[in-house]
Amino acid sequence: MAKVKKQPRPKAVTPKGFRDYFGAEVTERSHMLSQIAEVYHRYGFEALETSAVETVEALGKFLPDVDRPNEGVFAWQEDEKDWVALRYDLTAPLARVAAQYRNDLPSPYRRYAMGPVWRNEKPGPGRFRQFYQCDADTVGSPTVAADAEICAMLSDTLETVGIPRGDYIVRVNNRKVLNGVMEVAGVLDPNDPDAMETERGIVLRAIDKFDKFGEEGVRLLIGAGRMDESGDFTKGAGLSDEQADIVMGFMNARRESGAATAARLRELVGASKTGQDGVNELETIAELLDAQGYGGDRILIDPSVVRGLGYYTGPVFEAELTFEILDEKGRPRQFGSVSGGGRYDDLVKRFTGQEVPATGVSIGVDRLLAALRAKGRMSSVETGPVVVTVMDRDRMADYQAMVAELRNAGIRSEVYLGNPKNFGNQLKYADKRNSPIAIIEGGSEKENGVIQIKDLILGAQIAQNATLDEWKERPSQYEVPRGDLVAKVREILESQKQ
Amino acid sequence: MAKVKKQPRPKAVTPKGFRDYFGAEVTERSHMLSQIAEVYHRYGFEALETSAVETVEALGKFLPDVDRPNEGVFAWQEDEKDWVALRYDLTAPLARVAAQYRNDLPSPYRRYAMGPVWRNEKPGPGRFRQFYQCDADTVGSPTVAADAEICAMLSDTLETVGIPRGDYIVRVNNRKVLNGVMEVAGVLDPNDPDAMETERGIVLRAIDKFDKFGEEGVRLLIGAGRMDESGDFTKGAGLSDEQADIVMGFMNARRESGAATAARLRELVGASKTGQDGVNELETIAELLDAQGYGGDRILIDPSVVRGLGYYTGPVFEAELTFEILDEKGRPRQFGSVSGGGRYDDLVKRFTGQEVPATGVSIGVDRLLAALRAKGRMSSVETGPVVVTVMDRDRMADYQAMVAELRNAGIRSEVYLGNPKNFGNQLKYADKRNSPIAIIEGGSEKENGVIQIKDLILGAQIAQNATLDEWKERPSQYEVPRGDLVAKVREILESQKQ
Repeated sequence: MAKVKKQPRPKAVTPKGFRDYFGAEVTERSHMLSQIAEVYHRYGFEALETSAVETVEALGKFLPDVDRPNEGVFAWQEDEKDWVALRYDLTAPLARVAAQYRNDLPSPYRRYAMGPVWRNEKPGPGRFRQFYQCDADTVGSPTVAADAEICAMLSDTLETVGIPRGDYIVRVNNRKVLNGVMEVAGVLDPNDPDAMETERGIVLRAIDKFDKFGEEGVRLLIGAGRMDESGDFTKGAGLSDEQADIVMGFMNARRESGAATAARLRELVGASKTGQDGVNELETIAELLDAQGYGGDRILIDPSVVRGLGYYTGPVFEAELTFEILDEKGRPRQFGSVSGGGRYDDLVKRFTGQEVPATGVSIGVDRLLAALRAKGRMSSVETGPVVVTVMDRDRMADYQAMVAELRNAGIRSEVYLGNPKNFGNQLKYADKRNSPIAIIEGGSEKENGVIQIKDLILGAQIAQNATLDEWKERPSQYEVPRGDLVAKVREILESQKQ
Repeated sequence: MAKVKKQPRPKAVTPKGFRDYFGAEVTERSHMLSQIAEVYHRYGFEALETSAVETVEALGKFLPDVDRPNEGVFAWQEDEKDWVALRYDLTAPLARVAAQYRNDLPSPYRRYAMGPVWRNEKPGPGRFRQFYQCDADTVGSPTVAADAEICAMLSDTLETVGIPRGDYIVRVNNRKVLNGVMEVAGVLDPNDPDAMETERGIVLRAIDKFDKFGEEGVRLLIGAGRMDESGDFTKGAGLSDEQADIVMGFMNARRESGAATAARLRELVGASKTGQDGVNELETIAELLDAQGYGGDRILIDPSVVRGLGYYTGPVFEAELTFEILDEKGRPRQFGSVSGGGRYDDLVKRFTGQEVPATGVSIGVDRLLAALRAKGRMSSVETGPVVVTVMDRDRMADYQAMVAELRNAGIRSEVYLGNPKNFGNQLKYADKRNSPIAIIEGGSEKENGVIQIKDLILGAQIAQNATLDEWKERPSQYEVPRGDLVAKVREILESQKQ
């Protein structure tokens, strides 16, 4: 028989740009998702879970940020015919659903969706090709009451997942006000809305980069152009200083109170109808939120919110965490944005030809988790199970009976199921599991009807700080009657919580 | 300017073989998953969430049922180089993780995982290409105590999600006993284990089809062969009647008690060492479960469990719901299997060359949900939010304040955000949302400081059963002071629960 050529072994690796999540990383996220779902649900939103796969035709080229390079989808061909792809966000599937089921869904349709999305981007540090999104949208409602509701819900959600009031702010802006300002600056003609589109595109992208380049950089980009450190030149929009002043005035229009900000914006948009509509909308939103008790300490009219202005058509919102954390180099920095959203009116138009107004928000769950961990409000290290050690492998039934008792009492526990020969390995295992307690029942204990209960947390503390004599007294280990198993374990677990 | 050719509109359709889940379909499943996770966690299992995408190299050709046609994965090529694919189950990613992190993970490693998997199969009625799996496995433990634990956990899980004791049974069998029986029947030679592999393959596939073809069909398949209704002939394993008797004896070996079944199996495996090991393992499992209080009313040694025997290497288990439901044609039938699992020892061998013993279980969450719905223990229809109607669009702030009060009291509610002009549409909307209550505050109510609260559930009942006079009295609508909003709504919601 010819010798079969040996195949090399497959490599056990996560594909590039993807990652695995273990233990508390999974449970903490899933806990947060259910907290968020509860708030969304209380606001009347319905759950929707679409399939991960969509036809490429339905997805379209619909990516929110068109100027990011390498942005694509994971796609493949079905039976050498139709192309399908993994969803890149939760909005495109909503558009498809809103069109497909338009005769059956209630209108307005409030829905929330949470789950992974996939981006075929170049992976980088901290940049993954699969991540969670958590969206809520109201489809079919033109009133800004829908936008105000989303802002209120976002505020409630942040507090529900553990960001206290004062540690976050929801900022609201309006694309229409910017359009009004563009009219005043002379780069948008309401009678010929297509003219100067290139210039407006440059202005939009420039103010989107405010965080990155600052006021000076944005002024260059909307003016004569900007040369970066490497000498590369980015063409500007060619606005005069006067025009630039008007645009920059918009971004700096925030005043002490919402009313004062609105007044300043009203000045800036002058006679522009669109601009005035935009300011009115912001005022209505402020008024509606006020009626529900959401003051400026939670939700704020703020024209400096520019992210997403290019994509959205009306109100735009962003939630920012205002506390500082330490970055990789130990320097304090603001945590920044964890959520954004706004109004967009072309949701289902691609499918049906009809314009359907929609507004929604997306929460960056992984960033929120990172924030809570950075503030020490979440551990990401989980307490392990109580471990019942195996002293005599023929008495496995005894040990199983112990964990059954513990589990029936709601206590997380397990029997050591590795090779029990080396007792040290059992304690090492308990340590690796971050176990709070180990139970020991050897032959002599069995004879005397007792068990040993080892407080592993206290034990570790003593091992670190105690003298040899103190350690020898082993005050972290208790001998109790077998019948006291559950009671004593519970007592120790309680004491460890303090 | 040349006219741009009009593109046809994209079709808004779910890709073939995929589906969307709405409202309670989503929330009930997610509730069930968290109930299951809680049991798994209590048993000491750790959560693991791998990425949906794996390298094709890591996935391998590892599908559990090799004789199913059209079974494949969704795969695509990265940068014209490496192939990646969507995971087809949760076991292959576990194998990859167990190999990749083998120096960091505790051993034994107990992990659970839940999430969608994808199969590139021909879609059919009720057969989807994306579905949920919900697995728990113990990697690195050779002892059948690990298998017994999985059976106990499965039993606890079923009761936790709402299947009462008596409505399910966990059946346990052992591949080694079958191998022993094969030795006795003369189709397996322990000294030349590769001989007669073809025959054994046919026997395995035949007994896997016991449910479908019955005893008679299986006898033909392990004997001379079987002709189906269409005249197609399936070649048999060629066993003599005597040999076939021995194999069939295995499947019919179940006796009144576990001990009697074990005794019968011991007869059947005769001098086979493997067979005796298998019987011993089953006895140990029964003993361990007994010690934990799991009797034959919950977990049963049952040699008729043949599903998966081809795939697994030791103990095999299956959970079956024993109650009857009505099928599509209204005929009663047993609901059947909702979970299966067993021991397999080649989990990471492909990657590392080392044999690592593993045992695990997979729960069919969607089937469990279907069972609970069929028994009327779950509705899949959700009560909608309280709807605050809009009588005066200029007083939106008033209506928003009402829902804010209701939501702060934990009551699911919303303002109607469609066009409020036609009041009938608002009530139709509430009906479509399955709303329990509508709130009405028109101009005269506002003046008098009152609101109207409409019990929509009671209203619908009255509309169905009442005479016109009764209906006119409108006893399902209440006028209360504005300040009593929350209290009255709560009272009505309580009354609706009864």
